[in-house]
Amino acid sequence: MALKVGILGAAGYTGAELIRLIDLHPELTLTYVADREHAGQKLGAVLPQTEGVAGLSDLTLELFSEDLAAQLKKQVDVCFTALPHAASASLGGALLDQGVQIVDLSADFRLRDLATYEAWYGPHPRPELIPRAVYGLPELYRKELPGAELIAGPGCYPTSAILPLAPLFKEGLIDLHAPVIVDSKSGASGAGRKPGASTNFSEASEGMRPYKIAGTHRHTPEIEQELSRAAGTELRVTFTPQLAPMIRGILTTAYVRLKDGVTEDQCRNAAQTHLVSELLTVLPAGKLPDTLHVRGSGRAHVGYALDERTGTLIGMCAIDNLARGASSQAIHALNIARGFVETAGIPRLAQFP
Amino acid sequence: MALKVGILGAAGYTGAELIRLIDLHPELTLTYVADREHAGQKLGAVLPQTEGVAGLSDLTLELFSEDLAAQLKKQVDVCFTALPHAASASLGGALLDQGVQIVDLSADFRLRDLATYEAWYGPHPRPELIPRAVYGLPELYRKELPGAELIAGPGCYPTSAILPLAPLFKEGLIDLHAPVIVDSKSGASGAGRKPGASTNFSEASEGMRPYKIAGTHRHTPEIEQELSRAAGTELRVTFTPQLAPMIRGILTTAYVRLKDGVTEDQCRNAAQTHLVSELLTVLPAGKLPDTLHVRGSGRAHVGYALDERTGTLIGMCAIDNLARGASSQAIHALNIARGFVETAGIPRLAQFP
Amino acid sequence: MALKVGILGAAGYTGAELIRLIDLHPELTLTYVADREHAGQKLGAVLPQTEGVAGLSDLTLELFSEDLAAQLKKQVDVCFTALPHAASASLGGALLDQGVQIVDLSADFRLRDLATYEAWYGPHPRPELIPRAVYGLPELYRKELPGAELIAGPGCYPTSAILPLAPLFKEGLIDLHAPVIVDSKSGASGAGRKPGASTNFSEASEGMRPYKIAGTHRHTPEIEQELSRAAGTELRVTFTPQLAPMIRGILTTAYVRLKDGVTEDQCRNAAQTHLVSELLTVLPAGKLPDTLHVRGSGRAHVGYALDERTGTLIGMCAIDNLARGASSQAIHALNIARGFVETAGIPRLAQFP
Amino acid sequence: MALKVGILGAAGYTGAELIRLIDLHPELTLTYVADREHAGQKLGAVLPQTEGVAGLSDLTLELFSEDLAAQLKKQVDVCFTALPHAASASLGGALLDQGVQIVDLSADFRLRDLATYEAWYGPHPRPELIPRAVYGLPELYRKELPGAELIAGPGCYPTSAILPLAPLFKEGLIDLHAPVIVDSKSGASGAGRKPGASTNFSEASEGMRPYKIAGTHRHTPEIEQELSRAAGTELRVTFTPQLAPMIRGILTTAYVRLKDGVTEDQCRNAAQTHLVSELLTVLPAGKLPDTLHVRGSGRAHVGYALDERTGTLIGMCAIDNLARGASSQAIHALNIARGFVETAGIPRLAQFP
Repeated sequence: MALKVGILGAAGYTGAELIRLIDLHPELTLTYVADREHAGQKLGAVLPQTEGVAGLSDLTLELFSEDLAAQLKKQVDVCFTALPHAASASLGGALLDQGVQIVDLSADFRLRDLATYEAWYGPHPRPELIPRAVYGLPELYRKELPGAELIAGPGCYPTSAILPLAPLFKEGLIDLHAPVIVDSKSGASGAGRKPGASTNFSEASEGMRPYKIAGTHRHTPEIEQELSRAAGTELRVTFTPQLAPMIRGILTTAYVRLKDGVTEDQCRNAAQTHLVSELLTVLPAGKLPDTLHVRGSGRAHVGYALDERTGTLIGMCAIDNLARGASSQAIHALNIARGFVETAGIPRLAQFP
Repeated sequence: MALKVGILGAAGYTGAELIRLIDLHPELTLTYVADREHAGQKLGAVLPQTEGVAGLSDLTLELFSEDLAAQLKKQVDVCFTALPHAASASLGGALLDQGVQIVDLSADFRLRDLATYEAWYGPHPRPELIPRAVYGLPELYRKELPGAELIAGPGCYPTSAILPLAPLFKEGLIDLHAPVIVDSKSGASGAGRKPGASTNFSEASEGMRPYKIAGTHRHTPEIEQELSRAAGTELRVTFTPQLAPMIRGILTTAYVRLKDGVTEDQCRNAAQTHLVSELLTVLPAGKLPDTLHVRGSGRAHVGYALDERTGTLIGMCAIDNLARGASSQAIHALNIARGFVETAGIPRLAQFP
Repeated sequence: MALKVGILGAAGYTGAELIRLIDLHPELTLTYVADREHAGQKLGAVLPQTEGVAGLSDLTLELFSEDLAAQLKKQVDVCFTALPHAASASLGGALLDQGVQIVDLSADFRLRDLATYEAWYGPHPRPELIPRAVYGLPELYRKELPGAELIAGPGCYPTSAILPLAPLFKEGLIDLHAPVIVDSKSGASGAGRKPGASTNFSEASEGMRPYKIAGTHRHTPEIEQELSRAAGTELRVTFTPQLAPMIRGILTTAYVRLKDGVTEDQCRNAAQTHLVSELLTVLPAGKLPDTLHVRGSGRAHVGYALDERTGTLIGMCAIDNLARGASSQAIHALNIARGFVETAGIPRLAQFP
Repeated sequence: MALKVGILGAAGYTGAELIRLIDLHPELTLTYVADREHAGQKLGAVLPQTEGVAGLSDLTLELFSEDLAAQLKKQVDVCFTALPHAASASLGGALLDQGVQIVDLSADFRLRDLATYEAWYGPHPRPELIPRAVYGLPELYRKELPGAELIAGPGCYPTSAILPLAPLFKEGLIDLHAPVIVDSKSGASGAGRKPGASTNFSEASEGMRPYKIAGTHRHTPEIEQELSRAAGTELRVTFTPQLAPMIRGILTTAYVRLKDGVTEDQCRNAAQTHLVSELLTVLPAGKLPDTLHVRGSGRAHVGYALDERTGTLIGMCAIDNLARGASSQAIHALNIARGFVETAGIPRLAQFP
């Protein structure tokens, strides 16, 4: 019998993506959708792609609050929380208290160190839950996920930075004295569904631009946490997020210095060793990642090139920010947690073109 | 046991889309791919989204010819032919002769009248097969499809024009003396994978342009055939194809004059009566179609608005040209032909955004 | 000595486009900018393309009100009003009362019939000024413009519909009993600078969609006014505006029935006769308009094709909605009004690509 | 009297951009256009934006060869050569021999060291001319340009990398032992007008991708030449070109380590000292460059941010690759060489949006 699934924050882009994927998933049935802004409306009115779709179009977006948790327990076995930080921990926490499995897509359970969380996000409403969370990056937490009751879905940028770099740090291939630079380019859907000046079509379509750079973007500590864990020592990263004129996709180009004598092949081998997955491809030598090749799928493309003239290694990763960077990765982690087929509900192949 | 599936013309956009959908289909397994231009190459090299995907990446693109038909029979139960016209009939015909079921995505079996075919396309290599073909528009040919051995996948523009208009002609709602105008806007993927000046990004991204207008586009007779059939009399249509700066999608805006006293609601009712489908939505009054809402899915959105000031009815349809306008519709028709679940392998929901 | 120019509503897209063109204009100097929303800010902060540009970056956006009109008279000889309707007539009217020449880019002075204005827009604050306005479509009002003290800049859609059709009505080539259909596709900048859901990049970039159709868009009466004037009789038009995923550009495809025996060449000849201009090209037979070819310029491309199978004439026009559809046309009309070189300040050539 | 101008390679994107700007230039008149591929055609047929434009539409594209140089001397005072490398030096060299001033937009005269040129490009047809060329980066070669008879227009990527970094090297602010990383993102027009798979709209519009990385792109030695010159010592640069889904624009994000104690303000001051120009803005603290803000103009936006957590300085630059990265910069250099107004023919302001 299919698992009953709820979504808090169903009307945003990650919510919509969850609905698309759950509709493809043989083990999941969507039974509950909530959204504060659109509470009371039919799903078909808020997400027009569901208009006229049996079982979805007429779902009503509910207004969820903590006091409804006990009642909701009967309706859902697992709940995805796609809410602003703090709200996610409060509301998801209430459901977790009732025994509902939570897959959280906010930042609330990504950072293991409370002080770091508070420095970047402010007070945490349920700090005691942090130790119960498993970081939902499937390739690196495959052993910790089975049975997890609280899964912290990784950030989109961190996913794209950690995948190519963590294996190299784990294998000790990187010169830890040289800078670690993560230059990322994201599509506009990363900014969410709420319209704003910088994502207005006319001002986005021919604009390539950095924002929140030089250590000010909140994904910085998440990247540092995971790379430090891989390296076994505290690291600092220069992280540059940039808005690119596309809907979906993140391309991350990272720059590190390899230890003397380390080759490009060793880097690829490290990735193949540490990133075993049905939804990740380590590209062969000479192939470079492209957001086009992963769009709409749960797949990550990871590649490497060594600039022998300068000794700099370029580690690259392309993902779909809404799928691998959020919703499909959340389902991917859930599949492992529940023992489902790893790719259930998740397209292995990009929509091309 | 899953059906073994082959694709001739696997490296083009409709081929790639077939591969994406077959990978989601529980009853189909891809066993054979051919492509003249890329013969001998691995699929992973030609369609990078398959790189590293188990069962796909290492398939070799074959060079198919008629004399291989008998041999191929053992490898495939059904074959999609996504080739240029004439080639499709020749090669698909050879497989059909061997008992392989054919779903043809070219124009070769769409036109029932040989003279019309030859006037628009030139000589037909297998004219005797034309009467065996079933036109694969699921909503209108649902009764003819079961058991079909040769399915003619409809053209992308015709799909978008026939769906909103045929029901009105069937119900006799349209004034047959007034002009029938079909103004269509297509994304660039409709031009295929071969690069050309008009689809070069720099010249396409800010260009909205008509082409092959005033009765010169080859989809004109296909639209006329099906609307004439619905109307029970010979019709002529003014068809204006236009290139819009998007990857996927066709929006068709059609203009007809209703008979005196016919209402907008009667049009919607006619559509609901004649377009029963799990992959089509007749939009409620006041809602207008949008290619965004169907992209990546097999769903068609059909809507109507009556301009009471002028007496002109506007019939509209949005589809994904590569999915509903080609590959998903081909699978949709196959599903009905084989008695599979109607939506097997076909996303009901658009990728949004 | 250069003319002193002011702009009310300087921070919107038509304001920004005016500033770009005035900076190229040898006879105009920008001396005053006002914008209610951004009053008090420097132009460089609000329009970052002016950052660091001598004479522009440090202009302060003012808050203009009617009681400042007398004072402003000393600062500006001519003022462009790019404000919402009603506000434009009030504030521009106050300046006009002081003897400042006004070029209005709102709808306030486009409709000659007050009742029509009020039916579509509500009460008019200065109805007595309507008869003083000259409709600023240069090709059709070249004789009325010299000396005009109040110029009504035409709407973007109307410009693209009137240019190809008015000459045919003037020459009596069109069958007045058949419908007149105007199918228009506009870039997202037509929706203005204020962000909204439908122009959010993620929801616009792959979306082609109709809106305000079936006689509900406010540009409908303006198109009807000018075509009726050309035809010498009252006409009704079915007008379908559609949003296309591009920044700039309008492509209009209009459908009319020609009188028996009228040829496509006669249509082109009519256009060449009635649309004499240094900023308009009547395309030769076989050439079709494309928004790409006019983007950033004040040029309109007009073309015709006759569908001989159906007797329908397709009249087409491509313009840049912000330039020819608003700001460059306003300057174009001013140039004629003032006796300047027709193309002063206005690029004759598109930015390509 | 206006200078007579010729263009070799007039039908490509840089040729088209030269024509657009020359049409705005009060001191230049286009008298000769040549293009091998389109020789014999009218300009209006090849660049449709010129269709019907007086003085341009009917120019015939000529086939130029070296033996026509003496004859062409009478028709042109200055010639822009926008040809493939080697062809540019041969044909431009022949004209230079006749006393025609040459502004070369190819790579032929950018590299001062012949061996470096030959290592990256192959044999040089006119190596003896290299010492006569002045590198046409206006801000850095303002003193060398007046009277120059052979101007080497800088590459697009090098322009965007050199502008923000050269001042810092000149002032000795950078730690020369740390890596210099130049991460650049270019619009599709940088790939030229010839259609190719990677710039086909359907495969470009949602694709962000690196190419020719790790020391393999030919602009690498040009960047290194100019930064080494500024630093007074040989430098190596890790240069990563990336294709972004936009028509025009380059955003370069460069990473260097500052010497101990050097501040972000010192970087901005160095830029203001060394980059004096009417077509360059050093952005104030907190403002970041955006390709949108320079598109269509000759302006460069340069900005800086220091990541104090890591000690890495981020130097950034946004330009229009066809204007500041090619054609407007060529005219800019010519204006200085000839003593014209610096901005003659060059928009100071971007087309926005």
